Amino acid sequence: MSKSFIYDEIANKIAFQIRNGILKAGDKLPSVRTLCQEHGISMNTAKRIFLELEAQSLIESKPQSGFFVSKLLYLNLPLPEISRPSLIANNTEPNELITKVYSNMGREGVTLFSISVPSGNLLPLAKLKKEILYATRELREGGTEYEPLQGNVKLRRMIAARSLAWGGNLHEDDLITASGGMNSISFCLMALGKPGDTIAMESPCYPGTFQLAISLGFKVLELPTHPVTGLEIEALKKAIPKINLCFLVPNFNTPLGSCMPDEHKKEITALLAKHGIPLIEDDVYGDLYFGSQRPKCCKSFDLEGNVLWCSSVSKTLAPGYRVGWIAPGKYKDKLLKLKLVHSIASVSLIQEAVGNFLKTGRYENHLQQLRRTLKNNYQNYVHTIAEHFPEGTKTSRPQGGLGLWLELNKQTDTTELYDLAIKKNISIAPGRMFTLQNQFQNCMRLCIGLPWSDDIKFKLKQLGSLAKMIR
Amino acid sequence: MSKSFIYDEIANKIAFQIRNGILKAGDKLPSVRTLCQEHGISMNTAKRIFLELEAQSLIESKPQSGFFVSKLLYLNLPLPEISRPSLIANNTEPNELITKVYSNMGREGVTLFSISVPSGNLLPLAKLKKEILYATRELREGGTEYEPLQGNVKLRRMIAARSLAWGGNLHEDDLITASGGMNSISFCLMALGKPGDTIAMESPCYPGTFQLAISLGFKVLELPTHPVTGLEIEALKKAIPKINLCFLVPNFNTPLGSCMPDEHKKEITALLAKHGIPLIEDDVYGDLYFGSQRPKCCKSFDLEGNVLWCSSVSKTLAPGYRVGWIAPGKYKDKLLKLKLVHSIASVSLIQEAVGNFLKTGRYENHLQQLRRTLKNNYQNYVHTIAEHFPEGTKTSRPQGGLGLWLELNKQTDTTELYDLAIKKNISIAPGRMFTLQNQFQNCMRLCIGLPWSDDIKFKLKQLGSLAKMIR
Repeated sequence: MSKSFIYDEIANKIAFQIRNGILKAGDKLPSVRTLCQEHGISMNTAKRIFLELEAQSLIESKPQSGFFVSKLLYLNLPLPEISRPSLIANNTEPNELITKVYSNMGREGVTLFSISVPSGNLLPLAKLKKEILYATRELREGGTEYEPLQGNVKLRRMIAARSLAWGGNLHEDDLITASGGMNSISFCLMALGKPGDTIAMESPCYPGTFQLAISLGFKVLELPTHPVTGLEIEALKKAIPKINLCFLVPNFNTPLGSCMPDEHKKEITALLAKHGIPLIEDDVYGDLYFGSQRPKCCKSFDLEGNVLWCSSVSKTLAPGYRVGWIAPGKYKDKLLKLKLVHSIASVSLIQEAVGNFLKTGRYENHLQQLRRTLKNNYQNYVHTIAEHFPEGTKTSRPQGGLGLWLELNKQTDTTELYDLAIKKNISIAPGRMFTLQNQFQNCMRLCIGLPWSDDIKFKLKQLGSLAKMIR
Repeated sequence: MSKSFIYDEIANKIAFQIRNGILKAGDKLPSVRTLCQEHGISMNTAKRIFLELEAQSLIESKPQSGFFVSKLLYLNLPLPEISRPSLIANNTEPNELITKVYSNMGREGVTLFSISVPSGNLLPLAKLKKEILYATRELREGGTEYEPLQGNVKLRRMIAARSLAWGGNLHEDDLITASGGMNSISFCLMALGKPGDTIAMESPCYPGTFQLAISLGFKVLELPTHPVTGLEIEALKKAIPKINLCFLVPNFNTPLGSCMPDEHKKEITALLAKHGIPLIEDDVYGDLYFGSQRPKCCKSFDLEGNVLWCSSVSKTLAPGYRVGWIAPGKYKDKLLKLKLVHSIASVSLIQEAVGNFLKTGRYENHLQQLRRTLKNNYQNYVHTIAEHFPEGTKTSRPQGGLGLWLELNKQTDTTELYDLAIKKNISIAPGRMFTLQNQFQNCMRLCIGLPWSDDIKFKLKQLGSLAKMIR
């Protein structure tokens, strides 16, 4: 067994125990020496494990006493329940609710806890501007020409290079660009599915995906999903005979922020390949990890080319740029044809600018900063929620990404809470938005991508007071 | 009857007679005085009619002698036949041919007669760059934010304002933006059709459209199309019971460059509305008229909101920008939902830049110049073809747009010609690309959007020699 494999395995096991409350806040961890003896590892490896867990804010060191499960972070807020959706594709779209929430988003002065993008204040705006100017100068005919069908080669090369960080080993030729993440997923669903097909998804999941699936005439089968480890494998196994496609967000999916353990990713990838069910993997949040290491993807374990790995810069750099991509594995020809007939090409100029931004290393610097900010925000949110929300409020423990999932008292209707909050210029995303079934009425998602400030803290407090009012 | 209506009617009648060879090159036209008497119109109106026909290069004035049908322009090259496709949706895609032609387009040093976009030399590149820079400075968060779903309001306002020129009378709220013209059409077809539906189209037509339709599972019914007046109304009438959708390019469609007379537009629009068949109207070439007046659209006659008018800046300004739009009439809600689920939004920055370019009036100046250039190119092409192509070569008489359609001797196979020409670094678009049936094997389309030069003339000569060789 390789050294890095042992290291990962032990760190993940301890993290799992902490996240699931098996190890509780304040519990003492074994000493470095004990860990070495128990697992037959070196002192250096044991130390790296503790540093990793500390980087994830799961443990804290006390001088002369050793490591303890972090007291500060979770403040004993319990974890939401594992979801238990009905296992029949029984789709009732929350259209009115979604329309209401979206239509209020454009209003001046509203605090947008409801959206899942980083605020402009957290983005490298000046540097991006320079890249755009540079692209207009350097690109042939100033970017007015059609780009090659597969997309800007510089951008694809950089995405391929970055794939090493998650064990992807992609080549530029494995990638096709698209107009943002949703457009990538749309191409995958159109290329591989047909009306009447059933698609498996996490529950809860991002509303845009099931709206897309339903608009294409698919049936959506929501599967039980754990707030820490993501999709339940056993549920997927049972669903295999019923499904034609599978769509997953294994890394920091919205709204839960869960991260599927590597062994689950590997197992699911093999299982779906064995049954010839294409896996569309949305990795749009993968770079926003709070720990010290980029999580792997299902694509990392894809031996058959059965995984269509999709991502974009919409959650990390510039939602308005609409730059996304797909590594479609063995489905590349289908995807290329589809891109051609539906859009001919992507926007030359913007893809060139993003390609250059990635090339100069500015993207990595920016991501480091953004991850730090999001992790701090998450901790600040949880502190404020612990203090000001009704007793019994449960919160997810996202290991990355842009969202925090709250589960309130069973009687609390977050759609009602939405109506009260929007009057105070606070927009939240009620739980019912994230499912096609009657569940999550007492849940909501809060975006942690807003820069932390007294005003944000005040708005969270207000939200807590409103939640107490309607209990 | 209004004055401008009489003016249009008479000018169109004479133009029709010239284009169809009823009036022949060198024929004398009635004098201004005779025209006044025959039609009961004023001297001024009669003079305007002759000026309009002169602007279209259909007639020329000789001092002291009056007006004559232009000898220079057509050089007695006959018009191609009206198309007679099989009236059964019988779709054999020319996939191999299309792949071959497309894949050679990227080669260095190839003269691209095969593409249907204006060359970068004919575009206002420096001014566009300035608009991009300006947009990065002026747009909130430098354009990194999501745009409102319906699209940039400045751009929609300008498109609405410009619609007055073709009798459109649109409001900004009637328009939805998309990522280019094909993306607009893709949204329309997806919103209104379903697999198994039959869609009526002109024959020949742009390959991208039938590839899209077939990829969505539609059957394509090609209809007889006249090289001057476009789709044959009688054929459409007979097809009504068989079709679910109709897609037309009434103004300067590629490859023919035909322009449907207003009364046809009006009749077709009413006919389709009466039978509840949505009309998707692609007006992407509408601004590239060679005459003095912007032609109307079917949308100009749309009383029921049954026409989905689509256009873009891909043929006039910047193919690589991917800026298009739809005025979807009563289907607006469906289209908005579709845009949301497939793409969320368009690219903020580029839409703002194009919106500003339209607003400053630079677009109109550019179009005036581009139209002049294209018209001159067309005349130069026809001269060269008359001189160097095999006897009996027929050419379309485009009244605008970017393409010239050639019909060679029945025995000439333009796919074979393609193979010979590409060896000499000349790329043409063989006729078989523009149909799903076995027709047009002796035809081809040449792009007139390349700046005229000795080299282009030489390449045309070469092409003529090759065509003579394989007769």
